[in-house]
Amino acid sequence: MPARDQREFFTVKTVSEALTGFRPERRTAIETIALDDALGRIPAEPVGAPHALPGFARATVDGFAVRAADTYGASEGLPSYLDLAGEARMGGPPDAEVRQGTAVAIATGAPLPPGADAVLKIEHTQAATPELLEVLRPVTPGEGLVRADEDAAPGDELVPAGRPLRAQDLGMLAAAGVMELSVHARPQVAIVSTGDELVPGSEPKLDAGQVRDSSAPALAALVREAGGEPHFAGIVPDSREALTGKLHAALNLKGQTPLRVVEGLSRGTDILVVSAGSSVGARDETAAAIAALGEPGIWCHGLAFRPGKPTLLADAGGVPVIGLPGNPRSALVVFRLIGMPIVRLVGGCTDPPPEPSLRARLARDLPSAAGRLDIVQVRLHGDAAEPLFGSSALLSILTAADGYVVVPEAATGLAAGSEVEVMLYR
Amino acid sequence: MPARDQREFFTVKTVSEALTGFRPERRTAIETIALDDALGRIPAEPVGAPHALPGFARATVDGFAVRAADTYGASEGLPSYLDLAGEARMGGPPDAEVRQGTAVAIATGAPLPPGADAVLKIEHTQAATPELLEVLRPVTPGEGLVRADEDAAPGDELVPAGRPLRAQDLGMLAAAGVMELSVHARPQVAIVSTGDELVPGSEPKLDAGQVRDSSAPALAALVREAGGEPHFAGIVPDSREALTGKLHAALNLKGQTPLRVVEGLSRGTDILVVSAGSSVGARDETAAAIAALGEPGIWCHGLAFRPGKPTLLADAGGVPVIGLPGNPRSALVVFRLIGMPIVRLVGGCTDPPPEPSLRARLARDLPSAAGRLDIVQVRLHGDAAEPLFGSSALLSILTAADGYVVVPEAATGLAAGSEVEVMLYR
Repeated sequence: MPARDQREFFTVKTVSEALTGFRPERRTAIETIALDDALGRIPAEPVGAPHALPGFARATVDGFAVRAADTYGASEGLPSYLDLAGEARMGGPPDAEVRQGTAVAIATGAPLPPGADAVLKIEHTQAATPELLEVLRPVTPGEGLVRADEDAAPGDELVPAGRPLRAQDLGMLAAAGVMELSVHARPQVAIVSTGDELVPGSEPKLDAGQVRDSSAPALAALVREAGGEPHFAGIVPDSREALTGKLHAALNLKGQTPLRVVEGLSRGTDILVVSAGSSVGARDETAAAIAALGEPGIWCHGLAFRPGKPTLLADAGGVPVIGLPGNPRSALVVFRLIGMPIVRLVGGCTDPPPEPSLRARLARDLPSAAGRLDIVQVRLHGDAAEPLFGSSALLSILTAADGYVVVPEAATGLAAGSEVEVMLYR
Repeated sequence: MPARDQREFFTVKTVSEALTGFRPERRTAIETIALDDALGRIPAEPVGAPHALPGFARATVDGFAVRAADTYGASEGLPSYLDLAGEARMGGPPDAEVRQGTAVAIATGAPLPPGADAVLKIEHTQAATPELLEVLRPVTPGEGLVRADEDAAPGDELVPAGRPLRAQDLGMLAAAGVMELSVHARPQVAIVSTGDELVPGSEPKLDAGQVRDSSAPALAALVREAGGEPHFAGIVPDSREALTGKLHAALNLKGQTPLRVVEGLSRGTDILVVSAGSSVGARDETAAAIAALGEPGIWCHGLAFRPGKPTLLADAGGVPVIGLPGNPRSALVVFRLIGMPIVRLVGGCTDPPPEPSLRARLARDLPSAAGRLDIVQVRLHGDAAEPLFGSSALLSILTAADGYVVVPEAATGLAAGSEVEVMLYR
């Protein structure tokens, strides 16, 4: 079996080596989208404020625009008195001015009239006559208002590049009138499933020995979660020839011409994901077909990681290739750990969103070999995390889990009762 | 001001009272969707396994299908010998049988041949002759395989109702051949912005005193995060008449006829969100217009909560109405805390996804009044959470924040150095 011997040339890496060492340079193209479609998208460059925000000084309380100095010393026992000079209306220019000894009625949000430097709360005043205001407490300059550039000065960074846009970022961009922006295109991720036993999920009746492809739809969902666009390239039997043809088609490679990456812009498939056959022989066929895709080729074949050892990372002419274990459960665990960061990176996301997690106590001992990272599925009962053990062929272990615990490479296992961080599925 | 007097009739509630007490009965209709579109959607009923999964006993290692009893006592020093009776091929029915004293070669994932009860790893064997297998270690029944119903027995629950579908759930459904399923329709959420000063974000040039509507696009994003579909109903000036007309249009109410909810199915707008004007007078107009929408009317007017006091919750003929403070920042904080759970509930989500959070230490004292819940924006520096203070009119406080800290109703503030849970934005 020459394919099996070939494996010995490739190094097994640790997960941290893979995460820090396998950093594809490929980035998706930059496209312009409408603000309404921008939730979660990745700005390609920082967006600066085109002008000051809110743009004019505004009252933040209902009350009276005044010169603060006119209120100094005022108290309930010894009020100051100001002449009412008018009203600042909402949504329009101020039509009155505040001079020494005068006040202008103002509602929250209305523009501060010229001459005023503070807004006195209505609760701290009393009407002496319809034209005369009794001031019961002093106010200091700047009180009761926001300055014209307090939300942003012209040129201030409204949103950074590389961080997914959040709801409040969209609000800020709308406030600045930024209704379109440049973001990284969603990475186009081709998914190939291999295995003589596989049939599409749509197959109503299975023949003996056949199983439906569960990895592809689940991987597609993880691609979406990471901001990519999944494409099913189909199921291919465990034959080198069929596999090679399918991988080339999935890469949009014509014949043996590798895809060229032009000036950082991508065309066609950005990332290729292959869930390898489950037997050793089928995995070797996959590895050989991936190695033949082009330079620089296979970066690692094997991760010191359970359940993900037969993971393969390669670079085929600028397109990162992720070869996943054949077991659906292992494939999903590996893709979450290794694949989703690659999708984010290629999509320009340098500041990934936080993942939900919580602290819990292990309900049972977790054995683990030193030098190997273990991902253990757990179910939560209050603050107890119950490890779910079972064959990596079982998807039900994953669907029953609320999250997973990472047993780090250095650890030789964790004792029952240890505090662990549970990464939560959502 | 009669509107102001009217407010006194309504009770101010705590946030926990609102979350537990304001539970609209409305649920969206049930629709059938394709599995490929089901990520994050809410199953309307549990989905059971139509047949056993994987459906046949499968090898989980590369090796030989055997009768375990034939291997008992085998060791490297004293091997047992079995006749090789054939090969179980991948993806097809077994074409060989295992009888006493025989073994059948099998690859990971292939169906177990009749007569076998275990799979011996290839590493624990040696070929004596091409037809004779040397067994170097014993195997126990059930080893090296998964049973036909080990992932699911017929009728087992594959996914529960009410919990957003995760990647692994889609994988499990695909394995079972469930390519379509019944989910709750996305709640249709109408968003109305009110304020004489507001213009759409698309307005390139602002007149004095005008501001662009930043709340609507940010609220729309939060609606999407909660699984709803936002609809902009537009901006309306602070006039009771204009507001009443707009609210009726947004509810799809013709004249004064309240929307009827027929057999738990929804039509038209499922939730109405109104960001009220920012001045007290404008808020009172909004409250009066909402109160006039129909029975049973306003449930609470005012939350003991900063920055969200002027929050209004109502029920207009079966449609929950959420009146938000006029300040964009307060509106977003309130909607995340109170509005998103309502969107999820109406959309049938009874088991909401976990929110990301982390433990950090307060970098400064946080003052708070007892009996009032405070939401304080924080920026993270390592494990230090720096509170961001400033007017609730400022959106930049929210865009600068990595997350927020909840100071509970019972607390009178938190001291610098306290450990706090920071809810993270993503």
